Amino acid sequence: MVIHSPDQKSIQEAKEHQDRLTKPTGALGELEDIACWLAGIQRRKNPQSRPAELILFATDHPISLYGVSAYPREVTGAMVHNILVGGAASSVLCKSMNLPLHLWDVGVDSDYPVPSLCEDTQYHRMDSAGSVGNLFEEDGMDKTCLQQCMEAGKQAIDRLNPDTKIVLFGEMGIGNTTPAAAVAGAILKVEAAEIVGAGTGVHGNARQNKISLVQKALDRCASLTDPTDILRCLGGREIAAMVAAFERSAQKGLAVWVDGFIVSSAALVACRRNPAIRPYLRFAHCSAEAGHQRILKALEANPLINCGLRLGEGTGALTAFPILEHAITLHNNMATFEAAAVPDRED
Amino acid sequence: MVIHSPDQKSIQEAKEHQDRLTKPTGALGELEDIACWLAGIQRRKNPQSRPAELILFATDHPISLYGVSAYPREVTGAMVHNILVGGAASSVLCKSMNLPLHLWDVGVDSDYPVPSLCEDTQYHRMDSAGSVGNLFEEDGMDKTCLQQCMEAGKQAIDRLNPDTKIVLFGEMGIGNTTPAAAVAGAILKVEAAEIVGAGTGVHGNARQNKISLVQKALDRCASLTDPTDILRCLGGREIAAMVAAFERSAQKGLAVWVDGFIVSSAALVACRRNPAIRPYLRFAHCSAEAGHQRILKALEANPLINCGLRLGEGTGALTAFPILEHAITLHNNMATFEAAAVPDRED
Repeated sequence: MVIHSPDQKSIQEAKEHQDRLTKPTGALGELEDIACWLAGIQRRKNPQSRPAELILFATDHPISLYGVSAYPREVTGAMVHNILVGGAASSVLCKSMNLPLHLWDVGVDSDYPVPSLCEDTQYHRMDSAGSVGNLFEEDGMDKTCLQQCMEAGKQAIDRLNPDTKIVLFGEMGIGNTTPAAAVAGAILKVEAAEIVGAGTGVHGNARQNKISLVQKALDRCASLTDPTDILRCLGGREIAAMVAAFERSAQKGLAVWVDGFIVSSAALVACRRNPAIRPYLRFAHCSAEAGHQRILKALEANPLINCGLRLGEGTGALTAFPILEHAITLHNNMATFEAAAVPDRED
Repeated sequence: MVIHSPDQKSIQEAKEHQDRLTKPTGALGELEDIACWLAGIQRRKNPQSRPAELILFATDHPISLYGVSAYPREVTGAMVHNILVGGAASSVLCKSMNLPLHLWDVGVDSDYPVPSLCEDTQYHRMDSAGSVGNLFEEDGMDKTCLQQCMEAGKQAIDRLNPDTKIVLFGEMGIGNTTPAAAVAGAILKVEAAEIVGAGTGVHGNARQNKISLVQKALDRCASLTDPTDILRCLGGREIAAMVAAFERSAQKGLAVWVDGFIVSSAALVACRRNPAIRPYLRFAHCSAEAGHQRILKALEANPLINCGLRLGEGTGALTAFPILEHAITLHNNMATFEAAAVPDRED
C-alpha cells in the first residue's frame, strides 16, 4: 500500500494562514511548525488534533533474566494490570486528557488478571507464535514471531476509531531499553557503550553488564545490514509491532506522535525500511535515556520538550500532547490582523 | 507583610510520595520537581493546580515612538481589544484551558472599545497618574507613576478568586522588550548589545538603533544600583505592576508561573528587591528573545520548555501550563507500588 507524501499545497496554505494571525511573524515558533506539519498530513489548511489515541505494546524479554533492569521481570505483567485499572502514569494522563488507551499484550510472560475495563481503555492480546531469544546468544525473534508481531502492529492501527487523526505510541516491558539499544546500535553502527543508558536505573557494575551484553549481541550480528534483519535478530516484540504500526499509520495518512528511546528505536527501523514514513513522524520529547539523542540526530528530529522523563508507557508523548493541541487550537481559532482590525507590521 | 519560606516538611513528604509511585525512581524528571515545588508553597503533600488565573498587564511606551518595534504603537490598544474579544493567542489558550483572564490596562495610549466580556474575562483600567519617559533621555516613570503601577499590581493579586493557587503573568505593549532589556541590562551590568534582542522582529539597522537607545539609557543611569531605582528609571508600567504582583503573590503564598523575557525582567527586579520571593517563582519557558537566557541564568532558573516562542501575552506560561497540570495529576492520582501490588526495585 502506497505512502503518499504530505500535501505541499496544504502546508503552504497553513503557513500563509499563520502569517495572517494576530502575532509577530513566526512568534509561535515550533507551534507553527506543528500546525503546518499536520496540515500537510491531513491535506487541509486547518488540521485537527482529535480524535487521537494511545497504543501501548507490552511484552517481556528473555534478556531481562540477565540483570539488565533495576526491576524484577514480573513488573511487566503487574504494570499491564496497573495500566488497565488506571493507576499507571499512562492511564492517569490518558484519563485526564480523554485519550482512548489501547493496551496490546504481545508477549507478557507472567499471568495477570484482566479487570473489567473503564470506558476508553481497550485490551488486546496477541496469540504467541514462534520463539524469542536473549539477543547475545540467540535471535530476538524467529521469522514466525516477527511476522506475528508485525501483523499485531498493523491490526493495532486498523482497530483504532476510523476517524483517528493522530496516534501516540508507548511501551511497557522490563528490560526493553536493551533490545532498543541493540537495534539502534546496529543500525547506527556504534559501540554498545555509546548507546546503552541507565534504563529504569542501572548503574555501576549493572550498567557495565548491560553494555557487555549489548556489545556481545552487536558482535554476534555485525554482518547484518538490512533493517528488518536487525529488527528480528536484535529487537523485541513491542519494537517489531511498532515498526509495522508506523508503516500502517503512514499508509493510512495518520500522524504519529513519537515517545522516547524505545519508540524511537522502532521509528529508526521503520524509516530505514521505508523513508516515506519519516514525514508522518514527529518527536514529542527527548528522553533522559542516554542513547535517545543519537537516534534523534540520525532521524534529523528536533523533539518538542526535554523534561528529564524516562518512564516509558508513552508518557513523553502524552506529556507533550497538549502543546500539539495548543498549536492546532491557536492555528484554527486566533483572529487574523484583517478580521481583528489590528495594524500589521510596517515593513 | 512577611513572606514565608516554602514548607520543607511538605516538600519532603511529596518526594517520599513520588518514590512510592509505580514508575522507576525519578523517571518523571522535572514533573516530580514541579509537584514538590508546589507542595512546599501550598504547605501540603498533595498540592493543587487549580484555580489558576492569568493576569495580563498592557501599556504603551514613549520609546515606541523611536522605531524599536516592527509594529506600529497603535497595536497595543488594538491587541487589548483583540484579547478581550477572544481573538488573541492568550485568550484562545485561556478559553481552551478554562483559565480566567484578567486584563489590566496600566497605560494604553490609543482608544479602544471595551466589548461586553465573555465569562472568565475581566477588564481593569488603572487611572493614570504621574509621568512617563523615553528611557534614554527621561526616566521611564516618575515616583507617582511607579507607585501607582505597583499599587495596581498588588490590586491585581488581591482581586483574584480568593481560592487561587497559581498565577500566570503576561504582558502586551508595543516596544516593551526595550525597557525589559534596559532594566535587565542595568541589574546584570551588561552592555545593551548583550541583552537586546529582536523583539517582535527588528533586524539590521533597526536592531542597531534599538541597541543604541538602550545603551544610551544604560549610560544615563550607570550610577544606579538600587533595583527599585532601576525599575523606575528604565522600566515600563507593566514591568512595575508585575514586580509588585510577584511580591504580593509570595506574601499570599501563591505560586507564580513565569512567562518569557519581559515577565522575567520583572522577576529579576522583584527578586533583587526581596530574595524571599524567588522560591515562589517557576519559569515556564525559555523565550527565543536573545536576552532571556541571561536573566534565567542570573535567577538560576531552568525553564520547563523551549519551543521558540516569542509572542508575549503570557503565551509561554500558557503553553507550558498543561505540563504543570500533568505533574500534579500524576502526583495525586498514580497508584503506589504497594496499592497496585507491583514489585518494587530490587536494590
